[in-house]
Amino acid sequence: MDILIWNNGITVYRNNEIEMKEKLTIVKVGGAVVEDELQLSQLLHDFSGIPGRKVLVHGGGRRATKVAEKLGIETRMVNGRRVTDEGMLEVVTMVYGGLVNKQVVAKLQQRGVNAIGLTGADANVLLSRKRPPVKVEGLKEMVDFGFVGDVRQADGTMLSRLIEAGITPVMAPLTHDGEGHILNTNADTIASETAKALAPLYDVTLRFAFEKRGVLRNPEDEESVIKTITRADFESLKADGTISGGMLPKIENALAAVEAGVKEVIIGETVLH
Amino acid sequence: MDILIWNNGITVYRNNEIEMKEKLTIVKVGGAVVEDELQLSQLLHDFSGIPGRKVLVHGGGRRATKVAEKLGIETRMVNGRRVTDEGMLEVVTMVYGGLVNKQVVAKLQQRGVNAIGLTGADANVLLSRKRPPVKVEGLKEMVDFGFVGDVRQADGTMLSRLIEAGITPVMAPLTHDGEGHILNTNADTIASETAKALAPLYDVTLRFAFEKRGVLRNPEDEESVIKTITRADFESLKADGTISGGMLPKIENALAAVEAGVKEVIIGETVLH
Repeated sequence: MDILIWNNGITVYRNNEIEMKEKLTIVKVGGAVVEDELQLSQLLHDFSGIPGRKVLVHGGGRRATKVAEKLGIETRMVNGRRVTDEGMLEVVTMVYGGLVNKQVVAKLQQRGVNAIGLTGADANVLLSRKRPPVKVEGLKEMVDFGFVGDVRQADGTMLSRLIEAGITPVMAPLTHDGEGHILNTNADTIASETAKALAPLYDVTLRFAFEKRGVLRNPEDEESVIKTITRADFESLKADGTISGGMLPKIENALAAVEAGVKEVIIGETVLH
Repeated sequence: MDILIWNNGITVYRNNEIEMKEKLTIVKVGGAVVEDELQLSQLLHDFSGIPGRKVLVHGGGRRATKVAEKLGIETRMVNGRRVTDEGMLEVVTMVYGGLVNKQVVAKLQQRGVNAIGLTGADANVLLSRKRPPVKVEGLKEMVDFGFVGDVRQADGTMLSRLIEAGITPVMAPLTHDGEGHILNTNADTIASETAKALAPLYDVTLRFAFEKRGVLRNPEDEESVIKTITRADFESLKADGTISGGMLPKIENALAAVEAGVKEVIIGETVLH
């Protein structure tokens, strides 16, 4: 849209800066979706239909748990987060970076989307730091999550070079520490860090697609979707216990993204609306 | 170097077309090298030291065999080539595309090489066709290799876009059929098809690094390296049995690359000289 600017007595039209940026959609899908053939097919259909520039971020935790089990490697979770020892790091590197990522890329190619699979190590797009042992809510001892990375740098310029070459990045939940090690990283975090890094370059919409219709006031009632959540809303919803558990980091990620310049974050059931 | 051209009575200097192309080195390393920590470290040291534009192609067969065994999936080889059923396809997708590829990429990043891991599906760089059952030397029945792909198209333009953005492709021995399926593809073939696709754009040197000092006249004698092999040499060395087994497709790939415009192919122990 054009806006009217009165400049030195001459009437000129100039595009609003935000309107001049190209639109870019980042979709994050969880493991449950990519592991179910029917749901994956629907997702890829919907994702392929999104016009313009886009990025897909995927999980794959349930598949990793299954492969680990077959390999005799025990899965240990603390507060819904995977503890990643050396054996589990090999499993997630194989499953997230290989099996899930390449199957999604091949299926997007079939649909005419020129996808490229990326971990954070690829083209150095997401650099992280191995998480030191941390205090976890509800636990007395410090928890060592092992080979888990917290993102410290996302290269939006490199991602946009790929995107401007007509490529659609498909990002696995893995990063690297710059010292030769792959690290396991939460897919929601990958999505919000990527969104933040691309926000200066694009008009970014970040969509978290998951099994519920949105953030629910009452988990039992699909009609109780909370329409909008500001930082202030979040603090009070958190304080009164309406939002808890796995939704806490998801919404924290979403708010951080908006605060860093991402235009909108949508949490809901589908990719398209 | 300049060459002198006599043109319409005026003496002009013009660069030879070949000399004007940028130099590009493609190194192919087998599974034995990438699976041994010490050998891998030496390789990545040497590879990082190659000046200018470069591409790494890796195998990973022994690791795939080990992971398959742990998962209770049987490895079946015919004439040194892996038969890839559905279970084995998942294994090679995980091991080649995930485990080996991402570990190599992370270690190259550590050395300051901005690597990106690619299967043929990524950015659609290598499109293949599922191999139909074929006649194999020494066997009466046709052999169905399963989910194995023969390359039918390599996108040199896309690869060079990545390379010109300062990126070093690290290619796993996997391709895709354009219909949503990953296919297992011989790493030597990936290397020679990539070399052929880049030959119109670069002055390409293709190096097959493996455990011997070169192609040996007598396998027992490391000093019996055959210095150069032309197509005619190959036919007679093949006819008299000097070259046989796994060296046959390797040299066939090498000659095909040279015939398609690759400047030189070097088969030997090291990456550097």
